[in-house]
Parts: sequence; C-alpha cells; structure tokens
Amino acid sequence: MSDQLVSTLLPAIEAELQRQVSRLDSPRTQPYHEMLTYHMGWTGEGAGPEASGKRIRPLLLLLTTAASSGSGAWESALPAAAAVELLHNFSLIHDDIQDNSEKRRGRPTVWVKWGMPQAINAGDGLFVLSNLAITDLIAGYPAETVVLAAQILHNTSLELTRGQYLDISYEKRLDLAVADYWPMIAGKTAALLAGCCHLGALLGGADEAAQQAYRSFGNYLGLAFQVQDDILGIWGDETVTGKSAASDLVEGKNSLPVLAGLGKKGKFAERWAQGPIKQEEVETVAKLLATESAYTSSHEAAKQMTDMALSSLREADPQGEAGEALNELADKLLGRAM
Amino acid sequence: MSDQLVSTLLPAIEAELQRQVSRLDSPRTQPYHEMLTYHMGWTGEGAGPEASGKRIRPLLLLLTTAASSGSGAWESALPAAAAVELLHNFSLIHDDIQDNSEKRRGRPTVWVKWGMPQAINAGDGLFVLSNLAITDLIAGYPAETVVLAAQILHNTSLELTRGQYLDISYEKRLDLAVADYWPMIAGKTAALLAGCCHLGALLGGADEAAQQAYRSFGNYLGLAFQVQDDILGIWGDETVTGKSAASDLVEGKNSLPVLAGLGKKGKFAERWAQGPIKQEEVETVAKLLATESAYTSSHEAAKQMTDMALSSLREADPQGEAGEALNELADKLLGRAM
Repeated sequence: MSDQLVSTLLPAIEAELQRQVSRLDSPRTQPYHEMLTYHMGWTGEGAGPEASGKRIRPLLLLLTTAASSGSGAWESALPAAAAVELLHNFSLIHDDIQDNSEKRRGRPTVWVKWGMPQAINAGDGLFVLSNLAITDLIAGYPAETVVLAAQILHNTSLELTRGQYLDISYEKRLDLAVADYWPMIAGKTAALLAGCCHLGALLGGADEAAQQAYRSFGNYLGLAFQVQDDILGIWGDETVTGKSAASDLVEGKNSLPVLAGLGKKGKFAERWAQGPIKQEEVETVAKLLATESAYTSSHEAAKQMTDMALSSLREADPQGEAGEALNELADKLLGRAM
Repeated sequence: MSDQLVSTLLPAIEAELQRQVSRLDSPRTQPYHEMLTYHMGWTGEGAGPEASGKRIRPLLLLLTTAASSGSGAWESALPAAAAVELLHNFSLIHDDIQDNSEKRRGRPTVWVKWGMPQAINAGDGLFVLSNLAITDLIAGYPAETVVLAAQILHNTSLELTRGQYLDISYEKRLDLAVADYWPMIAGKTAALLAGCCHLGALLGGADEAAQQAYRSFGNYLGLAFQVQDDILGIWGDETVTGKSAASDLVEGKNSLPVLAGLGKKGKFAERWAQGPIKQEEVETVAKLLATESAYTSSHEAAKQMTDMALSSLREADPQGEAGEALNELADKLLGRAM
C-alpha cells in the first residue's frame, strides 16, 4: 500500500525536477542545459533510473509533508522536493571535481566530459536552480513559510560546505580520530537529510515540536546511514553494496572505522601512514582494523544512531500511508529491511 | 554633499559584509572562514581597501534604495547590499579557478593559496552566505518583499552562470562575432548591476515602472562599463586603467573590439588565428584592429549604451542626495567624470 504512494511520488518528483532544470533550456545555452540533464541522468549515454540515483531526499521530504499534514497532501511541497535534490546534485558535481572522481553512478563525471571550468559552472547552475525552486513554493504557501523554507535550505547548504571543508582538510592528515569524524559527516551527509525532514514537516504544517522531531529523525538517519555505509565500505558484502568490499581502504577514505583505527595509534595506524593500501593487502588490513576493535565500535555507533533515529521518528508520530512509507524507507536506509 | 553619503554607506556595507561572513566563524572551521575573509580583503598579506575592491554593487543598490524611498532611508536594505557583493565575490573565486588566474586585486587568488578543491568550496560558501543574507531582509520587510528580492537575486545568479558558460565556451573559438558578445556580457557583467538596481528600487518601495527603469539603468550601465573597459584593455591609457594597455590582446580575451575584428574576417582575424599575441606585437595588432574599424564601432557601442543608461536613469527619476550620488557614480563608471 505504501509502495503505491512511493510510486506515485517518484514520477512527480522527476517531472518537477525537469521543470526546474528547464529554466536553462534556451537555444543559446543548449550545451549548458545538456550538462545538467546528463548529470541528472535524463540524457546522454547510460541515461535512465540507474544514472539518476534513488531520489531519497525529495522522497523523504514529501513523505514527511504527507505524514504530518493530516490530509496526506504533498503536491504543494514539490518545489521544495526538487530544491533538495538539486542541492544534492550540485554538491555531487563539485565533489567529483574536488575528489578527482572520474565516474558517478557508472558514467563519466561532468568534469571528465566537459572539462573542469564548465563543470564548476554546471554545479553552480544546479545550486541556483535549487534556490529558485524553493521560491516557487510561493504558489502554494504564505510568503512567511517560503522565507522559513529558504532559511532552512540555505542553512543546510552552509552545513554542507562546512562538511566539505573538513573532508578536504582531512586529506593526508594522519592525526585524525573519531572526534573528527562526526562534524564532517554531520555536514556532508546528515545536514541534508535533516533539512529534508525539517522542510517536509514545515510544509506539512507540523508544529514546532514535531518539526524538530522530524529534523532530528533526518539527522540521525543520515548519521546511521553513513556509518553503515562506512562499515560496508570495508567489511561489506559486495552483493549488497555493489562496490567491492574494502574499496574505501584502497581509496584512502577517512571513514569511521579508519578514524577509529587511527585513534588507536596501533598497527593499523602504522600501516596507514606508510601510504595507499593495495588491493592485495585489503583483506589483511581489514582484519587488522577489526582486531583493533574498529568493527565493533563502528557497529555500536551505527546501532546507537539507528536507535536515536527511530526514537525521533516515533516522537514525530507520522500518520497514514505516508507514515508507513516513512517507516519503511527508514528501515531500508538503516539496513533493517534487507 | 553626496560624497558624504557614500562615505557613510561604505563602512556600513563593510560591517554588514563582515557580519554575514561571520556565520562561518566557528572554531572547527577557522581556516575556511579565513579563506573568505582573505578573499574579501580583510585579512592576510596585502589586506585593505585595495584588496577589497570598490563595493560598487552594494553601493549602487543602497543608493537606489535611498533615491527611490522618498525618505532617503537605506538601512533596512543592508542585507541585500551584502548579498549582491557576496554573490559577486563567489563568482570571482570560481572565475579565478576557471581562468587559471593567479592574481586578484594584486594578491594571490584563493586557489593559489589553498588549492583548487578548497577554493571551489570557498566560492560555494560565499554563494550560500549571499542566499542567507537576502533572507535577513525579513527583519525590515514584509515576507512577500523578501521572496521577491530572493527571486531577483537568484534570477541574477542564473544569468551569471549563463554568461560564464558562454565565456568558457568561447575559448579557442575563432568563428565568433559581435553578436556573440552581447549575451555573454549581459550575463557576466550587466545582469548583476541590473539586479542591484532592481533590488534597490524594490526595497526603496518604488512602483513597478520605476523598478523597471532602475533595472534598465543598471543593465545599460553594466554594458557601457564593460565595453569601455574592453576599449581601455586594448588602446587604453595605462594611467587610467592601472593595467598595461593591450594586456587583453596578450591574454586573448574575447572583448568587443576583438570580436568586431574577428567578424571582419580580415588581417586581424588572420593574425588572431595564428595563436597568442606577443607583448612586442601589441602596438601593431592594436593599430591593425583600429584600421579595421573596431575602435570606432566599439566607441559607438559604448556611447549608445551610455546614452541608454542615462536615459533610463532620468526615467527612474532618483531623488535627493542619493539621486545626486547615483548620477555621480554613473558618470564615474561611464568614464564621464574622469
């Protein structure tokens, strides 16, 4: 039953996204528009749902709106749903340049196809479109609500750039510990999920307490999801993640288990300091990391964040079909439904 | 008398900018905040008014507010003044990366000092701060006005990214003509000045017709200013521009005279196609370009845009001390007061 709601929402989200991006669809800037439709997964080689990603963030926003609105209505919140997805995708385009990543969702990244200068500008373009999308709420909400929504969106963006600053600044640092992990991930992953739920609740007409409960749910959901992703990135099941286990080790990613290991200043930290982990070492290093209790401590952290997410969601008390769908989405993201 | 108003406005603008940027002043992101205060000209080697730039855009905005408000008041519009200057500076940081420019206002650019990944993020940060600044108008304006102001700001940003796309896409193209010039410069230079005047008039309470007249003034002011800057960049007086005449030729900039020359498909176009102009050729090539009537036609264009700017300003009918200052600022920017 709640699957049905999700399958109504997804095409509505996609149509709204296309409407927003079409602001740049003019004869003189055709290739600029094409960079964005390519990145969004709509055009170019390999276009399709796989290339678009799962649209988790707009889904989370609309489900929160529907679950907190009493009536189950969500249509007027569509521009905000587009705004958070555009914001997410702006950050991906810039992230790919900053990380020198050549692939995103199995396809060449924007900078690989169009060069770094155009890719910076394409990211900026999605960012502007996100800002414009949020002002489109004026069609269905009082201006006061639109300003509040814009403030939530922009504060979320500010957190994103803070997290990105930390992530970049951590590169090549060997003195990191778990305490450095949380603020980075709070900005890079949790802030946007928190923002989605906060926006959704605001637009559903939830009271201040419920808005904060939803926001808190999004925040812990983001933290739990990231920690779990980090665990899978080192000891994970390739059939589940789709990427080879331990690829995070080879890429030198400052994930929670790695920072837990570094904080121990033991054999793992010693090996990490010696330079990139090679593919053939991965199993040994992953085991070494586990013996230094990084596996247990990361699992413990994931469990704690999951519990807090679910307790916040209970407090928010989502209603109806959307409420069910929200619980199911949380279970899926937290790996409880798999 | 109107100098006095400007010297009241400038420190108020600077204080508001510092207040806005201080949103990122937190212990964990100190170096991130420092990148922004460095770029804004407040900190680091060479800090000072020279490094900050002239704050033309916020000045234009506040003078428009004061000149159209009846009372001459401008204080409540300060967050918008900060927003346009932050937007301008975001675009400069990204522009310097895209153009591989090592100096900005005489100092090393952000990417030279902190690397490309952090510089992209620093630009993104100023962009977010610009968005947040505009929502701060809520302290002094009805929410409806704040939403309108945000829409003007974001549509201006969209034009900026369009102009930037065109500018980048023109590199290495030899088939360009004057018709390709105007849309680029409309986005890169004129859109933001138009946006400043539009925002200023909105916040001064001008009616729709006056808002459009002010907007038109800003637009033509931007076009005229850019054309004049392009002329000085090739035949200019070094004592006026502070940069060596013809530096634009050496840098291969697609300025109006160059595109006028390319459109002729004559000797200049032939020389241009053969690769970078060397310093010792500059005088000859500049003369060549003048014989192909690029000097006359560019001057003609500058005069036309100037006339349209001044006629729009007359139509807008700015009042009081601010109105005087606005006329003086226009004269200065249009090279009529020098």
